[in-house]
Amino acid sequence: MENIKNYIEENKEKFLEELFGLLRIPSISSIADHKPDMYRAAEYWKNALLQAGADKAEIFETPGNPVTYGEKIIDPSLPTVLVYGHMDVMPVDPIDLWKSPPFEPEIRDGKIWGRGADDDKGQGFMHAKAFEYLVKNGTLPCNVKFMIEGEEEVGSPNLGKFCEQHKEMLKADVILVSDTGMIAQDIPSITTGLRGLAYLEVEVTGPNRDLHSGLFGGAVANPINILSKMIASLHNEKNEINIPGFYDNVINLSTEERNEMAKAPFVLEEYKKALDIQEEWGEKGYSTMERTGIRPTLDVCGIWGGYTGEGAKTVLPSKAYAKISMRLVPNQNHLQISELFEKHFNSIAPDYVKVKITNLHGGQGYVSPTDMIAYQAADTAYTETFNKKPVPTRSGGSIPIISTFEQVLGTKSILMGFGLESDAIHSPNENYPLFNFYKGIETIVHFYHHYAAMMKESQA
Amino acid sequence: MENIKNYIEENKEKFLEELFGLLRIPSISSIADHKPDMYRAAEYWKNALLQAGADKAEIFETPGNPVTYGEKIIDPSLPTVLVYGHMDVMPVDPIDLWKSPPFEPEIRDGKIWGRGADDDKGQGFMHAKAFEYLVKNGTLPCNVKFMIEGEEEVGSPNLGKFCEQHKEMLKADVILVSDTGMIAQDIPSITTGLRGLAYLEVEVTGPNRDLHSGLFGGAVANPINILSKMIASLHNEKNEINIPGFYDNVINLSTEERNEMAKAPFVLEEYKKALDIQEEWGEKGYSTMERTGIRPTLDVCGIWGGYTGEGAKTVLPSKAYAKISMRLVPNQNHLQISELFEKHFNSIAPDYVKVKITNLHGGQGYVSPTDMIAYQAADTAYTETFNKKPVPTRSGGSIPIISTFEQVLGTKSILMGFGLESDAIHSPNENYPLFNFYKGIETIVHFYHHYAAMMKESQA
Repeated sequence: MENIKNYIEENKEKFLEELFGLLRIPSISSIADHKPDMYRAAEYWKNALLQAGADKAEIFETPGNPVTYGEKIIDPSLPTVLVYGHMDVMPVDPIDLWKSPPFEPEIRDGKIWGRGADDDKGQGFMHAKAFEYLVKNGTLPCNVKFMIEGEEEVGSPNLGKFCEQHKEMLKADVILVSDTGMIAQDIPSITTGLRGLAYLEVEVTGPNRDLHSGLFGGAVANPINILSKMIASLHNEKNEINIPGFYDNVINLSTEERNEMAKAPFVLEEYKKALDIQEEWGEKGYSTMERTGIRPTLDVCGIWGGYTGEGAKTVLPSKAYAKISMRLVPNQNHLQISELFEKHFNSIAPDYVKVKITNLHGGQGYVSPTDMIAYQAADTAYTETFNKKPVPTRSGGSIPIISTFEQVLGTKSILMGFGLESDAIHSPNENYPLFNFYKGIETIVHFYHHYAAMMKESQA
Repeated sequence: MENIKNYIEENKEKFLEELFGLLRIPSISSIADHKPDMYRAAEYWKNALLQAGADKAEIFETPGNPVTYGEKIIDPSLPTVLVYGHMDVMPVDPIDLWKSPPFEPEIRDGKIWGRGADDDKGQGFMHAKAFEYLVKNGTLPCNVKFMIEGEEEVGSPNLGKFCEQHKEMLKADVILVSDTGMIAQDIPSITTGLRGLAYLEVEVTGPNRDLHSGLFGGAVANPINILSKMIASLHNEKNEINIPGFYDNVINLSTEERNEMAKAPFVLEEYKKALDIQEEWGEKGYSTMERTGIRPTLDVCGIWGGYTGEGAKTVLPSKAYAKISMRLVPNQNHLQISELFEKHFNSIAPDYVKVKITNLHGGQGYVSPTDMIAYQAADTAYTETFNKKPVPTRSGGSIPIISTFEQVLGTKSILMGFGLESDAIHSPNENYPLFNFYKGIETIVHFYHHYAAMMKESQA
C-alpha cells in the first residue's frame, strides 16, 4: 500500500494540471448559455477515463445535459463498483467576491481555488486518479464503472430515467460517491444520511404594473410587503416550519441516538466565530448538529422585487419573487412536501395579490447503513490512511439522485466525502485543500482493496 | 385669450420637436454614470429659456447636479412668478417592459411616450412655451423667473442651500409648479397638499459569507427570512404602521373635512379593474382616497438578497437588503420619522443578525392654502380652459423641496399639475397625453393673466 503514496508523490503536478483543465470549463448547469460547456466537460471526462485505463468511455445524450460513462470489466464474476460524480457546477455570483476568477484555478495557501475545486470536480477527479493507479499498478481488484452526470446542481432531472434505460450497463454491487464532506482534516467521517430537498419559486403579483408609491402607496397592496409577511409566517415562534402536515413523516430519533450524535466534536463558540454571528438560530429543542442533521428546514435562497439599483427610487412594484428551499429528512417525501407548501402558500395569500408557484426541483433523503460491506471497507480504509476511525455523520446537504439510485438500480451508495466546511462550496472562493485531494486518492485505493477482499470473504 | 389657442395650433409640431430633444437626454439623477447627461439637460433648458424670451439664462453649479436659472424682469414693481421644475428623471428598469425605448420619445394613441414625458420634462416644458407665447405676443403681465433643477428625483439634496445662497435672485410672489396630477382630463384639479417622504435602505447581515443551505440551513439565521419577518412586523393587523411614535404628529381631519374629500369622484371598481386587483389594501377605517391623501404609509420599494438568477441555486445568503419609503402627511417631520424608524428597526433586530441603516433621502409635506391669490387665479384659469371649476385635492406624492421653498424663501407654491394617473410616471411606458400638454400651456397663460390682475387689484 506504500506504492500509492509514491505514485501520488511522483504525479502530483500532473494530477493538478489535469484537474485544472476540467476546472477551467465553466460548466454551470443552471444557466442555459453554458450548454456547450457541458459538452466540453463531458468530453474532458471521457478522455480522462480512457487515459486512466477504462476499456471504453462514451458520452450519452439525455433530454438535458450529457452523461459520461466509462468502465473497466476485468472479470464479470468479481464485484463491481459504480463511481458516481458530477461535472456540472453552481453559478458563481456574486462574482466580485471571488479573490481569483472562478474558472482560472490556482494554488494558494495549500489549496486549489476555483468553482468546482471541491464540488464535484475535485472530488470526482480523485476517483479517476485512484482508478488510474490501480490499473497501471496491475492491482485493480474488481470491476469499475463511472457515471459522471451534468445536472446534479439542478436536481438531476434526467438521470433517473437514464438509470432506468441503462439498468444492465449500470449494474453494480455498490455506488461510490465523493460529493460530501468530512468533519476536519484530522477527523475523518463517512456520511450515513443525506437530507432531501424541495425547491420552489414563488411570484407574488400586486397591481398589474409598477406604481408611484406616493400616489398609490397605502391604498394598494405592495407585493414585497405581502411576500415578506407570507415568508415570515412560514416559521412559528419556536422556529418550527408552519406548514400543516410538514412534520408528519419526520422520524424522531431516540434519546440514545441523539446522545450518540452529540459525541461528535463541535464547539459552538468556534462555529459562531467562524461565521461571525453573535447567536445561532434554529428550531427550539435541538442542537446545532441536530438542526442540520436530523431536522428539516426552510430557507429563502433568494428574494427580489422592485428597485434594487443605486439611490432612492420610489416605486410600488407590481411583483416580488422568492426562491424557497426546504431540506428534508429521510422518510419525508419531497413531492408531498412541495404539494403541502404550494397548498399552504396559496391558502395564506390574501385577496390583494395573485400567487404563482413553480416547483424547480426536489429529491428524497437517503440513509446509508453502517453494517454494509462497503461501509466496513471504507471504515478500514480511512482508519489506515488517517490513522483514525471515521465518524458516521448525517449531512445537512442533499444529493437527491442517491435515493433514486436505490429505487431504480436497487443499489446502495457509500458516501466517501473529503470536503471541508471551509471549502465554500456553492459560494465565492470555493476551494479544496491539496491534502484532502491527495489523501482522498489514497483512501479510495485502500477502499477498493478492502472492499474486494471483504466481498470475496462474504461470498466464500 | 383666443390667441393662445391659435399659437398652440400653429406651433404644435415645433413644441413637440423641442420637447423631444429634451426627452432624448437620459438625465437619470440617481445613477452617477448619467452625470454628463445632467449637464446636457441643463444646457438644453438654458437655450430653451433664451429662445422663449428670457433676458438671461445661466447654469449654476451645485455640489451635485446643475441648476438652470433664467428670468425676464419687465418691471420690478410688478409681481414676480418663479417657475420651478426639474430636468432629471427616474431610472428606467425594468427596461424590457417598455413598448418603445424610454429615451426615444414617440407619439402613439395621442400620447407622448418616454421617460420624463410627464414627470417633469413634459410638464416643465409647458411653462417654457406659455412664457414664449406671452413674450412674443407682448402680453406678459408680470416678471417671470425659472429654476429648473437636476436632483428632484433624489430628494433635491442641494437645492435648499442653493435657495439660501440666491435668496435675492429667487425672490418672487409665488412659486408655480407643474409636477403633480389632475383627477381626469374632464375633471381638473389643483393639488393643495403633498406628502412628505422618508426613504431608507436597510442591510441585514447573517453569516459573514454565503453558506451552503444544506450544511448550514436550520442552524444559522437566514438574513432573508429575518428581514422578511422584520418587514412583516412593520404593519399591524389593521395595516397601521407599527413604529412607536410614528403617528404622534399626524393631524386627524375632522368629519366635515373628510366628508368634503369624499365628494371627489372615485369609483372603487374602476380603480381595482385598472390595476387588476381583486381587493384594495390599506389602513382600516379609511377610504382609498384618504389612505393616499391624508394618511402616512410605509412601502418596501425594493428588496434583494441571495440567488436571483435562473434556476434553482441553493444558498443561505450572507446579506439581504430592502429600500423602504414612508410617505408622510403635513406636520410629520421626516428627520424625526427617519430617526424613529432607525431606532425601531434596530430594536427589533434579533441577535442572529447585524443591521445597517442608511438614510437615502427625505422631505417635509406641504399644504397650499386655497385662499391665496395664486390659488384663486389658478381656479379661474382652469374654469375658463376646462369649462369646469377645479377640485382641490391632496396628493399622495411628495415634492420635498416645496416645503423647503417656504422655509428658505418664504414663498408659497401653487401646484398646477396636468398629469394623469395613467401616465405611469416612475414606471415603464411613462406617457403624457397631447391634450394635457397643450391644455396645460393654455391654462398657464390664463393663470398669468389672472394672477397679475388679481395681484394688482389686491394692492389697489
